[in-house]
Amino acid sequence: MYSFKNDYCEGAHPALLKALVESNMQQEEGYGYDTFTKEAIRLLKEKIQNPDIDIHFLNGGTQTNLTAISAFLKPHHAVIAPHTGHIFVNEAGAIEATGHKVITVPGYNGKLKPEQVEAVLAAHPDEHTVRPKLVYISNPTELGTIYKKDELRALKEVCTKNNLYLYVDGARLGSALMSAENDMTLAEFAAYPDAFYIGGTKNGALMGEALIIQRDELKEDFRYSMKQKGAMLAKSRLLGIQFTELFKGHLFWDLADHANLMAQRLQDGLAANGVTFLVQASTNQLFPVLSDQLIEELQKKYSFYIWQRVNEKTSAIRLITSWATREEKVDQFIADVKAIKNRIEKKQTSFA
Amino acid sequence: MYSFKNDYCEGAHPALLKALVESNMQQEEGYGYDTFTKEAIRLLKEKIQNPDIDIHFLNGGTQTNLTAISAFLKPHHAVIAPHTGHIFVNEAGAIEATGHKVITVPGYNGKLKPEQVEAVLAAHPDEHTVRPKLVYISNPTELGTIYKKDELRALKEVCTKNNLYLYVDGARLGSALMSAENDMTLAEFAAYPDAFYIGGTKNGALMGEALIIQRDELKEDFRYSMKQKGAMLAKSRLLGIQFTELFKGHLFWDLADHANLMAQRLQDGLAANGVTFLVQASTNQLFPVLSDQLIEELQKKYSFYIWQRVNEKTSAIRLITSWATREEKVDQFIADVKAIKNRIEKKQTSFA
Amino acid sequence: MYSFKNDYCEGAHPALLKALVESNMQQEEGYGYDTFTKEAIRLLKEKIQNPDIDIHFLNGGTQTNLTAISAFLKPHHAVIAPHTGHIFVNEAGAIEATGHKVITVPGYNGKLKPEQVEAVLAAHPDEHTVRPKLVYISNPTELGTIYKKDELRALKEVCTKNNLYLYVDGARLGSALMSAENDMTLAEFAAYPDAFYIGGTKNGALMGEALIIQRDELKEDFRYSMKQKGAMLAKSRLLGIQFTELFKGHLFWDLADHANLMAQRLQDGLAANGVTFLVQASTNQLFPVLSDQLIEELQKKYSFYIWQRVNEKTSAIRLITSWATREEKVDQFIADVKAIKNRIEKKQTSFA
Amino acid sequence: MYSFKNDYCEGAHPALLKALVESNMQQEEGYGYDTFTKEAIRLLKEKIQNPDIDIHFLNGGTQTNLTAISAFLKPHHAVIAPHTGHIFVNEAGAIEATGHKVITVPGYNGKLKPEQVEAVLAAHPDEHTVRPKLVYISNPTELGTIYKKDELRALKEVCTKNNLYLYVDGARLGSALMSAENDMTLAEFAAYPDAFYIGGTKNGALMGEALIIQRDELKEDFRYSMKQKGAMLAKSRLLGIQFTELFKGHLFWDLADHANLMAQRLQDGLAANGVTFLVQASTNQLFPVLSDQLIEELQKKYSFYIWQRVNEKTSAIRLITSWATREEKVDQFIADVKAIKNRIEKKQTSFA
Repeated sequence: MYSFKNDYCEGAHPALLKALVESNMQQEEGYGYDTFTKEAIRLLKEKIQNPDIDIHFLNGGTQTNLTAISAFLKPHHAVIAPHTGHIFVNEAGAIEATGHKVITVPGYNGKLKPEQVEAVLAAHPDEHTVRPKLVYISNPTELGTIYKKDELRALKEVCTKNNLYLYVDGARLGSALMSAENDMTLAEFAAYPDAFYIGGTKNGALMGEALIIQRDELKEDFRYSMKQKGAMLAKSRLLGIQFTELFKGHLFWDLADHANLMAQRLQDGLAANGVTFLVQASTNQLFPVLSDQLIEELQKKYSFYIWQRVNEKTSAIRLITSWATREEKVDQFIADVKAIKNRIEKKQTSFA
Repeated sequence: MYSFKNDYCEGAHPALLKALVESNMQQEEGYGYDTFTKEAIRLLKEKIQNPDIDIHFLNGGTQTNLTAISAFLKPHHAVIAPHTGHIFVNEAGAIEATGHKVITVPGYNGKLKPEQVEAVLAAHPDEHTVRPKLVYISNPTELGTIYKKDELRALKEVCTKNNLYLYVDGARLGSALMSAENDMTLAEFAAYPDAFYIGGTKNGALMGEALIIQRDELKEDFRYSMKQKGAMLAKSRLLGIQFTELFKGHLFWDLADHANLMAQRLQDGLAANGVTFLVQASTNQLFPVLSDQLIEELQKKYSFYIWQRVNEKTSAIRLITSWATREEKVDQFIADVKAIKNRIEKKQTSFA
Repeated sequence: MYSFKNDYCEGAHPALLKALVESNMQQEEGYGYDTFTKEAIRLLKEKIQNPDIDIHFLNGGTQTNLTAISAFLKPHHAVIAPHTGHIFVNEAGAIEATGHKVITVPGYNGKLKPEQVEAVLAAHPDEHTVRPKLVYISNPTELGTIYKKDELRALKEVCTKNNLYLYVDGARLGSALMSAENDMTLAEFAAYPDAFYIGGTKNGALMGEALIIQRDELKEDFRYSMKQKGAMLAKSRLLGIQFTELFKGHLFWDLADHANLMAQRLQDGLAANGVTFLVQASTNQLFPVLSDQLIEELQKKYSFYIWQRVNEKTSAIRLITSWATREEKVDQFIADVKAIKNRIEKKQTSFA
Repeated sequence: MYSFKNDYCEGAHPALLKALVESNMQQEEGYGYDTFTKEAIRLLKEKIQNPDIDIHFLNGGTQTNLTAISAFLKPHHAVIAPHTGHIFVNEAGAIEATGHKVITVPGYNGKLKPEQVEAVLAAHPDEHTVRPKLVYISNPTELGTIYKKDELRALKEVCTKNNLYLYVDGARLGSALMSAENDMTLAEFAAYPDAFYIGGTKNGALMGEALIIQRDELKEDFRYSMKQKGAMLAKSRLLGIQFTELFKGHLFWDLADHANLMAQRLQDGLAANGVTFLVQASTNQLFPVLSDQLIEELQKKYSFYIWQRVNEKTSAIRLITSWATREEKVDQFIADVKAIKNRIEKKQTSFA
């Protein structure tokens, strides 16, 4: 059984574990004051080309989203998100649990358009409704699509015009920025959001996300929010060491690149065998549409999510590749799809 | 510079890292469904000698306390704690941030007495006050003292009588149960609280606490609470592997034992040099009372917290030992105290 | 200027004021223990024909909804509501502010179907999503429609089957139960919801809603929740006196009846002049569709809400009648619509 | 049975009811936009001699405190209060339910000293603790004492110096400002707090408190907070009319004056009969210390709270006078105390 279920099936990239082992007995301060965390912050500021940002390391995506958003907003503020947004769908109501409504609009391929933001504002005119204050998007989106520079700038402009915060969930940001379609560097991307996070968990770390806060008014006392939400690790070195390893050279980018290449290989191989896709993606998530019979056969050898029913006899599945995905398993998967499809078609022909 | 500041200065016990490295490329389910987490649960149920408990692994103490307590209580319920309780003093208002008042009483050496619980109940008679519902204690306490079996049983009785939950913060539970004063096994201890946690972070793990829920009405849907509070790790193997290593043999107990022995050695050595202590403790925290001049000298070679001023010229400091504390550093510390004291006394004599 | 904007333009029915004046200097207990509150509870239990319900008086609709729902739910529980639901649209995120997500479905004429409840449950299968626990509906709905007995029973059944609470917002319940379409008595209606409230503010009281809790597990400690949310009035007599007046005889029903009759008269008169309606309603809210030019003219003499644009040149407005609506004003409004329409049509003819 | 239990035993001052009755059928806007609310705001700005304040009318004290404090603070902020503070003792954990810790210090006769504020700040140095941000005091205090101008100014200075908000709970502010000891006008008083409220419920209104916000950064969007907490009345005229009546002439002051005079008369009469008091107060609350036997006798004719046990045989009771307290009842009470005391003493003498 090989898993294409997600990008957190394996542990961490070996280089990270090696660094953990080597520094293990070194005594360090806790709670973010260790030397590794400081070094990781220094490296990230360099890569982002902005010394005036604040950087904090948290443990996971839901935790980062809820800690940041609840710290940024006042009680009557609400979030605007596309209806596929991770905070709306898959975080157990974590944002609402901190007191904030998440207002959703349909989105298009997982993305949000500036005019949708303005429509939400128009529908929330006074104190009988909440006040929308923060726009939440994910890059890549939950459907594997990415924002181009023009799209992000347009969203930023509508936010600026309406005094909204722009927040980007970058659980798989590495994959977005290494996508063949992408037209921004990390530094160019980073100039737009008021805050965003760079995901480590889904790109080779044991756990860990780097939250970048750019807007000054959102920076104050953020460590209080982390502590209060249980998001501050005593042995913060665990996050500092991993992010130092990821960003001291090219590792973070190489891992995302590998994940994307494996997805591309999978997409090309499936397409060559007549498979179509729910969404045209360019990162490490694919949504091939397959017959239920084919899916059933594949489940004997592979694990993956069934995403949604497409019609009576076909469904879209979700395949995720990662830094750890093995090329031969991708090729085997393609070969298996081809073989099973042939078998099914033959059977159907012989019945006909 | 050597640190006696806390028990999370170093990384993890090497056996835990080794297990992480060895299992690293094995594909696993996430969010608590990995094979290691299952094994760790099996092992803990065995040690606790109770198959009917629920066990969940969380990342840190504050996170465990806030997730558990907010899941257990209704909005109008409050917590009773001694005024030294970690949730009241050092968790940035995390419990109140989930909506619950923490009612404190003075405590005695960090411990809570049954009659104090009843006094709180008497002072909260109706809906103009909150309804106290959960008793929070720590074992060992924040002052390094421990609950004896009789004390714990008495607290349990007052809880049962008044339909209160008893919750024990076991951030350093290993140290309590390995204390020379302790008169309970883990299984005997575990029979009292409705829920408690066994701390990993402060006993050799990179991070991780095992929450044990015994009372049936507190078990339902706890995974929802974990997810909602951002306390569920995608790569849950990280916790599963470490707790498996700690509990598959004696490691958890050996590490706590070492910490206690180092503390005992430190206490004996200091006492032999005329040092007195704020509290008589038997775990891995010591509170020696030293002259400010002595403290100043020690700070040049050691890091530790200054706990509280005792009188004009003396303060209590906090020294913490851990699984990683080196015996020669303990001996050196004692020798340094002795030498500095002598030097100071000589100087005073020569001035006199 | 005459207002059809809402049913809280005037003060209270004179009988209520008279009772307030007459009892004014009588000394009474506060916080719900006054003799009038007790009498109002007695009367309501009699009308509902159920001695085993708990009844509490609160100040307004949003307050009642947020206090009740937050008292009934655990932190990971969510509400299911039609997307027109008052708690979702017009209560400033009050439910989310207590930590609970409101999951909406499109509804049909403001109503919720059992199969929609089941679809929501299917989409929320595990702890990565919230757990839907309470179904919120309004009767009448925000569009003036009402639930028939069969519809309510069907919703109750789907709730019972899935262990969900059924909660009915009865801000205008009097109007629903006095509707010509209605097929339930108060006692018959009351048998279905686990909890509901009977609105006073919109049916002749200065303020006040009567919350009825039927399900035993929801009753416990509700007074704590009221106090904690600032929903307990010191001079609770103010609510007790008014509800006693409303329910000691037929007043509550007479007031709702008048409101409905005025709406019916308005609807008949407008329809006779060729006006169509957005929704076919049978309570005290009407949504006539008028040309923008006609609306503009009417606004010079009447105040009302413009509800939604229907097409380029027409919009639906909302007209609300109440216990205080004067028949001659209704007739005048109809006459004005007729006159303005004629004038506009003539002008258009002369231009043609 | 005559009640000295509190100052909300009766309804409203007849002038308020009269105004309600007379304006009853006038159509008005809701939610604070009625003409009466506007007039009441105009009057209060005039009395406070400050056109730049924001004024909102809410329903009760707990509601006002929780709505204001939760609107003013960020999630990691805490409140500093004397341990007798109403929000800490008697509001069912309402502040904590909005997520904020209330840090208490002993206080002196219900008052807070500047040095106590600074001690709290010193004990909350970093993100492991909450950040104190708002100082809560009551004037008069819960013990009937009042702040003199110097005391208030000193508190304001310590707040300004440490960037804390000063908030005053004025549930009985009229009584404080009419106290013989008081040395401030309303306008002079109002210059100190960043926000405070003027209580109506306890000074002759059916319900209602006027919240005054002076500091600009606290004003923004406050109506959203009111709506979200269920604190915005549809028929806001109910509050507007009452506050207009109270402040259009001297009524508010006359009512408080009467309450204070009645308390003074009671105090003098009791003192003349040898009764001592727990606290020396100058407003409408008295805490006479009486023998348990005397208390038992008095309870047959009067209702009041037993405040606290003083020693084995005596307790302090709380007597509250109000705008409605009748002079002959005060005199009767004094006479009864005298008579009962004599009877008891005689009996004791005859036993001796």
